[in-house]
Amino acid sequence: MLAVYLDRKKVSVRSAPKPGPRQGFALIRMLYGGICNTDLELLHGYYGFRGIPGHEFVGEVLSGSKQFMGRKVVGEININCSRCSWCRRGLGRHCPYRAVLGIVKHPGAFAELLTLPERNLHVVPEGIPLSHAVFAEPLAAACEILEQVAIPPASQVGVLGDGKLGLLVAQALQAHGARVHLFGRHRAKLRIAEKAGAVGELRGSKLPAAAYDYVVDATGSPEGLAQGVAMARPRGTVILKSTVHGAVPIDTAPVIVNEITLVGSRCGLFGPALELLAAGRVHVADMICDSFPLREAPAAFRRAQEKGVLKVLLCNN
Amino acid sequence: MLAVYLDRKKVSVRSAPKPGPRQGFALIRMLYGGICNTDLELLHGYYGFRGIPGHEFVGEVLSGSKQFMGRKVVGEININCSRCSWCRRGLGRHCPYRAVLGIVKHPGAFAELLTLPERNLHVVPEGIPLSHAVFAEPLAAACEILEQVAIPPASQVGVLGDGKLGLLVAQALQAHGARVHLFGRHRAKLRIAEKAGAVGELRGSKLPAAAYDYVVDATGSPEGLAQGVAMARPRGTVILKSTVHGAVPIDTAPVIVNEITLVGSRCGLFGPALELLAAGRVHVADMICDSFPLREAPAAFRRAQEKGVLKVLLCNN
Repeated sequence: MLAVYLDRKKVSVRSAPKPGPRQGFALIRMLYGGICNTDLELLHGYYGFRGIPGHEFVGEVLSGSKQFMGRKVVGEININCSRCSWCRRGLGRHCPYRAVLGIVKHPGAFAELLTLPERNLHVVPEGIPLSHAVFAEPLAAACEILEQVAIPPASQVGVLGDGKLGLLVAQALQAHGARVHLFGRHRAKLRIAEKAGAVGELRGSKLPAAAYDYVVDATGSPEGLAQGVAMARPRGTVILKSTVHGAVPIDTAPVIVNEITLVGSRCGLFGPALELLAAGRVHVADMICDSFPLREAPAAFRRAQEKGVLKVLLCNN
Repeated sequence: MLAVYLDRKKVSVRSAPKPGPRQGFALIRMLYGGICNTDLELLHGYYGFRGIPGHEFVGEVLSGSKQFMGRKVVGEININCSRCSWCRRGLGRHCPYRAVLGIVKHPGAFAELLTLPERNLHVVPEGIPLSHAVFAEPLAAACEILEQVAIPPASQVGVLGDGKLGLLVAQALQAHGARVHLFGRHRAKLRIAEKAGAVGELRGSKLPAAAYDYVVDATGSPEGLAQGVAMARPRGTVILKSTVHGAVPIDTAPVIVNEITLVGSRCGLFGPALELLAAGRVHVADMICDSFPLREAPAAFRRAQEKGVLKVLLCNN
């Protein structure tokens, strides 16, 4: 089968062995894959990654149990042991023995075929276009905020960053009933969140100070955390949604003096994300900038790294 | 009256004008004052401070309303407006218009006389020695953790740092019903927390990894935060109890990947602290290393800065 391969900052498309059968795992033909910032980070050496990337996908089950055969599915990316105390508490996304699709110890979705445990799969509900279903994974990560932090409906929430994740966070929180103010630097991107009811705020260097009980940093920049802390009211909560590599300098004094809570937030459950997509509450169509056949993955990765580009899809159909 | 004065890294004792009468404020004769790390930071230029420091005290009310006249009191340090939305929500410690005793815009307690709003005062309960009551303020700061974070009884809690604040935090959380492991570098200090039932752990450079749902950083060192994050389990909470000045480098990746919550924590309410002192649940006597008359404040400040020294008191009686 054809597979995208990342190795030493280079993207290639190679022939790779077809995944073998494995108890409890389904074999899935990839239909669409989405290139995520994490994939770009893997390309640049994060986790010392070398192999087949890809963790945002929608596919068709080629072999597996009856309930999934021939169905279009998306899949949760943490492949956990299902037996440890984390898994038993429903927090398999923190299983210490986990592999992670296309990131840690399990080949990713940017290939003609992939495998995942059937317990990770979700059938794509009727009415969600397949190119939209590929957003289930990042939208689940956005919805994870609501699993961790009880944001009362009608709360004003500041979201920093109008990139892919910021746009999904803004729309997911707005759909939850929050009043989102999305701060970004691109009028066209802000407009996507505005369609979902959020208020877009074209930001300069000055941001409102001590103005929100809840702030989400989705800037992906080392300055985002300090900016988020400054935007939060005393006793407020800042949700860290974007990984920045290496040490970020933070002045802990305002965090302590204003008793700010910082919450790290990562992967989420697919259920709420698929519900939002099925209900048309999140506008993902406008976030798709381009799509490339799998064999043109190097061009797709280049496109995904261009300034201002949102989601780039790979397709295999 | 005599007053301690901090100015450009120098401690002096000067004659200062007696505080004038002010509506709602009591005039208080200082009996004991406690030197806190914040006072040492003020000495070294924090907040650009210049003036009379001191915010840990016990005193006798010389003039005020009938309920306080002649009584021994301690006092909460945030002098708030009592009218803004923060004050109305019972969070006057975050009032944006506040002054802070001996820190911001209000002369401190290291003087023969001080003033505070009567609404800040608490009569020292019977049976608490006055030299112990001076711990009400830092113990309230330790108890603040329990106002912010719901720590279930019998939870194992890791506390980093066996300095003054770490010892009070360890004892307060242990009294609350948590099972505290206090990590420090001084056998004798750990023993103080052990008397209160905590487990003292003489630490080397290696600390247990991913071992606690709750960790308190009371190290006062820039490394404490990263160490606390590494000690916390996924979805765990790290409470930031010690201010470090300037930027602290933090790798946000483990915070995000493990979905750690960081909670900044500052001043607390005096009620719970006085209850703990009255019940003898916190061993503060062993934490008093020395005491000096007010006029010997320069020597007291020198002593308080010696390595390994815990609380140094000033007395005015």
